[in-house]
Amino acid sequence: MQRRPDQLTAAGRPPNEGGRADRAADEVTGRRNRVAVVTDGTAVLGLGDVGPAAALPVMEGKAALFVHLAGIDAVPICLATKHPDEFVSAVRALAPSFGGIDLEAIAPPACFEVERRLQEALDIPVFHDDQHGTAIVVLAALRNALRVVGKRVELARLVVVGAGPAGTATARLLVAGGATDVVVVVRGGVLHHDDMPRLPLHEARLAGLTNRRRVRGGLADALAGADAVVGLSRAGVLTRELVASMGEAPVVFALAAPEPEIRPERVSDIAAVVATGHVDYPNRVDNALAFPGVFRGALDARAPRITMPMRLAAADVLAGLVPREALSTTRLLPEVLDGQVVPTVAGAVAAVAAERRRRVDPAAGGVPRQDAARNVSPQEGVGP
Amino acid sequence: MQRRPDQLTAAGRPPNEGGRADRAADEVTGRRNRVAVVTDGTAVLGLGDVGPAAALPVMEGKAALFVHLAGIDAVPICLATKHPDEFVSAVRALAPSFGGIDLEAIAPPACFEVERRLQEALDIPVFHDDQHGTAIVVLAALRNALRVVGKRVELARLVVVGAGPAGTATARLLVAGGATDVVVVVRGGVLHHDDMPRLPLHEARLAGLTNRRRVRGGLADALAGADAVVGLSRAGVLTRELVASMGEAPVVFALAAPEPEIRPERVSDIAAVVATGHVDYPNRVDNALAFPGVFRGALDARAPRITMPMRLAAADVLAGLVPREALSTTRLLPEVLDGQVVPTVAGAVAAVAAERRRRVDPAAGGVPRQDAARNVSPQEGVGP
Repeated sequence: MQRRPDQLTAAGRPPNEGGRADRAADEVTGRRNRVAVVTDGTAVLGLGDVGPAAALPVMEGKAALFVHLAGIDAVPICLATKHPDEFVSAVRALAPSFGGIDLEAIAPPACFEVERRLQEALDIPVFHDDQHGTAIVVLAALRNALRVVGKRVELARLVVVGAGPAGTATARLLVAGGATDVVVVVRGGVLHHDDMPRLPLHEARLAGLTNRRRVRGGLADALAGADAVVGLSRAGVLTRELVASMGEAPVVFALAAPEPEIRPERVSDIAAVVATGHVDYPNRVDNALAFPGVFRGALDARAPRITMPMRLAAADVLAGLVPREALSTTRLLPEVLDGQVVPTVAGAVAAVAAERRRRVDPAAGGVPRQDAARNVSPQEGVGP
Repeated sequence: MQRRPDQLTAAGRPPNEGGRADRAADEVTGRRNRVAVVTDGTAVLGLGDVGPAAALPVMEGKAALFVHLAGIDAVPICLATKHPDEFVSAVRALAPSFGGIDLEAIAPPACFEVERRLQEALDIPVFHDDQHGTAIVVLAALRNALRVVGKRVELARLVVVGAGPAGTATARLLVAGGATDVVVVVRGGVLHHDDMPRLPLHEARLAGLTNRRRVRGGLADALAGADAVVGLSRAGVLTRELVASMGEAPVVFALAAPEPEIRPERVSDIAAVVATGHVDYPNRVDNALAFPGVFRGALDARAPRITMPMRLAAADVLAGLVPREALSTTRLLPEVLDGQVVPTVAGAVAAVAAERRRRVDPAAGGVPRQDAARNVSPQEGVGP
């Protein structure tokens, strides 16, 4: 009667359940509106690797935002393991009770691996918010910041500092969103195509997607003449001199938390627009603008995953929530508590999911959830 | 940075967390009031081995009872595994977010193993309600039924039919509660001390604890002259003839669900008192009389486990909630919605936990939670 993991289906559910109990559970239970907010406590914002117990207050806060902003029944789950295999096994095991998995505060490179493996195994959305939530809000804010200075993402010279979870996902979303000149800088210097063989996997993949001008060198080389810099690294990485070396009307996103790459007041006379992750400054880049609506939309549409097109759509409508005439150097994003945010983002995400279904099966106007999951191409998937 | 399970502490938490984050989490989070209602869907009441998705509505119902009866934040967790190792790993991993683990609808013998292993690994209560919740309510009801017919549990000849989770736990609690003449009958006949070497482990243990008169044979042999029978087996096992063979004013608990061992109307002229698990008859033995208060008390007292003395205390106060003068053949138990039930049971459980602490460290009036957990003797633990 005992079964090994390899005898489970791709959905992590025993094969004898067929689809019937599963579909019935979607109808008669609260599963479709329940999201597990899962961490191992290895990368808690501002705290680092503090373990599951110390991470619990943060996860409860996140769960409260899900509840209050999007009406999603979120459950904080702090896992007592740091091993990716055990993390994946535990989340696969508990998945039948949930309509989605929100991964939080997991250190790289494990965060990339567990997200990829879980999304492959499950037919419900698996979303690492530190990656994709951040990327969505950054792209929205950057679109608007560049509008303020009369530029476009597609033509701008963009520099991303840091290739952690947030930096990696942001660089990838910028490219997917049409940016043609993205340079990523890590401690070892600019990511370069020729260095791919000796880079860690997620940096190698980034190097293959970015730096079309084949810039060589370090942060100073990347920033010289750049239109915007997105810091997702650590405090103190940016200096006045570096910002002064950028192009005309530079956009500076100093998003390291709790202390930004450079304090806004230090470049207020040089930078045209500054954004941080800090609540004390204007233009706070806050993930709470993205994840409640993204999950709301994905759950409503019964999307089996949150694809790149959904994330791009979320960023676009989020940017659009600040009317052109209201855009300014101190107003790039809507307020988190603006009642339009969640329904607008959710609507955009759900619309992309519905469009995808129609594409897969135009006659039926859609396909069953599990078939849809199987037909997702790798390009639309998540992960670095 | 990766750690194997053997590098985790007994509490299932990484050793570098020390006790500080753990104690802080107890103070600043909702963990102490959060219980995971966990199943693998292998033994859902009336349904059997239906898997996690089909079990979800039942677990949600259980969670709702926790919330509404005891104010406990319960989370349904249906695990997509039937392997005890994976079950234990998954629950150990998710335990840091919870103040207690309520196990439900798990088939034997896995239910005994996972409960024992989890309680050994965790310093929060692990309670298999199908075993211990049932046993508590049965003992309470049986005390009162015997009072109605002028007998006492301590002196009565008691027969338990079935050694599944409920039968096993009930027989053990009866013995712990002072019953001196308990005979357990399974399909193979009466459990007998001499048969211990060839019985399954949990039946062998029961054989060692019960049948002091060394009864041999089958159900008819056990029931001849008995004062009470507690059926926790399956529909149709009891007959009019068998009940007629019992002693004077026999007490019949036919608790198989959904269909009892015998319908009450079939023995209404023979049995003095009949109880079932059925809502259509008087004397419904309902676990909801026990588990909300048991968990409320254990959580309030920060008890690291729910011991046998706590379960006995719960049964005693539950029986006491029906005043002597109100006791009758059709009124053995209080109503589930009686507002006194949860606080009374909780108070009794918490008092035993507090008394235990004082005994361990009389000077301090108590010991820290984790030390208390280590000092619990195996005899006070759970399991068959």
